[in-house]
Amino acid sequence: MDLEIFTTGGTIDKLYFDAKSSFQVGEPQILEVLREANITLEVRVTPLLRKDSLEMTDDDRQLIQQAVASTDAQKIVITHGTDTMIGTGKALQGIDGKTIVLTGAMQPARFRNSDAVFNIASAITAAQTLSAGVYIAMNGQIFDPQNSRKNVELNRFEQLEPQ
Amino acid sequence: MDLEIFTTGGTIDKLYFDAKSSFQVGEPQILEVLREANITLEVRVTPLLRKDSLEMTDDDRQLIQQAVASTDAQKIVITHGTDTMIGTGKALQGIDGKTIVLTGAMQPARFRNSDAVFNIASAITAAQTLSAGVYIAMNGQIFDPQNSRKNVELNRFEQLEPQ
Amino acid sequence: MDLEIFTTGGTIDKLYFDAKSSFQVGEPQILEVLREANITLEVRVTPLLRKDSLEMTDDDRQLIQQAVASTDAQKIVITHGTDTMIGTGKALQGIDGKTIVLTGAMQPARFRNSDAVFNIASAITAAQTLSAGVYIAMNGQIFDPQNSRKNVELNRFEQLEPQ
Amino acid sequence: MDLEIFTTGGTIDKLYFDAKSSFQVGEPQILEVLREANITLEVRVTPLLRKDSLEMTDDDRQLIQQAVASTDAQKIVITHGTDTMIGTGKALQGIDGKTIVLTGAMQPARFRNSDAVFNIASAITAAQTLSAGVYIAMNGQIFDPQNSRKNVELNRFEQLEPQ
Repeated sequence: MDLEIFTTGGTIDKLYFDAKSSFQVGEPQILEVLREANITLEVRVTPLLRKDSLEMTDDDRQLIQQAVASTDAQKIVITHGTDTMIGTGKALQGIDGKTIVLTGAMQPARFRNSDAVFNIASAITAAQTLSAGVYIAMNGQIFDPQNSRKNVELNRFEQLEPQ
Repeated sequence: MDLEIFTTGGTIDKLYFDAKSSFQVGEPQILEVLREANITLEVRVTPLLRKDSLEMTDDDRQLIQQAVASTDAQKIVITHGTDTMIGTGKALQGIDGKTIVLTGAMQPARFRNSDAVFNIASAITAAQTLSAGVYIAMNGQIFDPQNSRKNVELNRFEQLEPQ
Repeated sequence: MDLEIFTTGGTIDKLYFDAKSSFQVGEPQILEVLREANITLEVRVTPLLRKDSLEMTDDDRQLIQQAVASTDAQKIVITHGTDTMIGTGKALQGIDGKTIVLTGAMQPARFRNSDAVFNIASAITAAQTLSAGVYIAMNGQIFDPQNSRKNVELNRFEQLEPQ
Repeated sequence: MDLEIFTTGGTIDKLYFDAKSSFQVGEPQILEVLREANITLEVRVTPLLRKDSLEMTDDDRQLIQQAVASTDAQKIVITHGTDTMIGTGKALQGIDGKTIVLTGAMQPARFRNSDAVFNIASAITAAQTLSAGVYIAMNGQIFDPQNSRKNVELNRFEQLEPQ
């Protein structure tokens, strides 16, 4: 296995159920994305949570932390809701020797127009090309969780200050 | 003008706004559907409401009734939320001399997989081929509002009893 | 069974094979269209040919004619290449007591933007609502094969003269 | 400007023209991909050629070589037909101090299911994260042009031998 993907929920996996007129986190969409792109990389997909990131608790974050620390994979992608992605990224910074890339989407992968495929591809590539550490892959860029934020108004990730 | 389309909201026009983590009725998607299908029929699109059909009031229904009654078009399509589509259909049955077809979608038109395009095409065709009256175009069939229901569990429209 | 669909090929079913850098007629896409739209109508899909309509011979046309004449279905949709759709339509006009609707697409159903779903829905609806006869469902309209043509330059179907 | 993208044609930009029943290289699709993914990276897109890669001549390859050598950009992505992508990659290996990533697609970007978005995202990310050199981004992996090939039968890129 070359790379492990942990899914935790978030907008990227959101579905719409008409009968209930509600909008919920569904099954991980990432397998379909990998199939459509005809990925030959050996990838293991491990669903951990199925939550809006605003509802993530400290226990959830600890679950993710333990899964990442205990896997034998050294290249790791985590799909995550965007609202608390940076917080989870910071919580993972104590783990040594692994390249960990978090990503998500502003529009569900099920939408005709979505940033989901682009962001997943970006994260999978970054996990293979970057040295050990924790990164955010969003909006076509790679961010350091210590030096970035989600701009809620503009609905995008930004660097806090020029490095 | 050959046909008029009134839009009233419903799932068909639902969007997802990440910043607010909510799911709302957006602009009518029907213009994009007509463009993509390269429709040469002369169509006028008139937005009336932008509501979940569960939130429709008697006043809303009266607004629709008046719009349909007063237009010079004789072939009319109404996009509508599915939950109260049949009720609105019954309320329109007093209007004479017009072919009125209601349709909607179980999955938003913005989704990669949606019944929206099929249902709109079905309604536009039925409005041109059927005689005056009120009809529901859903699930590939044409229903009479007096003799049909939305099966919420199976998420589809059904005839009440064999005719 | 409520309706039978015969598939004969054409642009609607075209795929792209990179290895050969060619573009060929593939498997009928209509089953996926019916599934996505959650059709509850009882439909039988019968593949007859897999051809560009420019390559259709008199034998092919006779095959279609016999299939339509001998089926027990009274509501029939035929997916067909657009270039000779009108010719096939005329050849079917001797069959009595059946509503036969031909349709196709200018852009393959596999494309993100295609008229395929709209046209199939239009044909399926017309086959249920129109009286016996042969019709073309394209560009959101219903045409009489005796009084229509494909405008190759504008890439759309037109009525020959006002009726 | 952070990154320059040169487009040269190939399957990724293929369109289908029904009137001619042919399949041709169209306008670069990459701008739509960047918009859909809400890329905030500063990117310049420069169309160079619009060719099937099997039709590329030595002159074409020299044109690409000069464009890459003379731009002030240090991070470069080239969209290219897959059949001769590796050859062009080798031809670019004399250029120092730049990170050059070639990518393309097995299925046109216009298709509902395509590897185009994934591959573009992978190339844009690799161009930002890898050191100077020439790379191929296909099938979720990064290849060295000197040590890879397109497996035409399986329609994918492969490493020639384990490194």
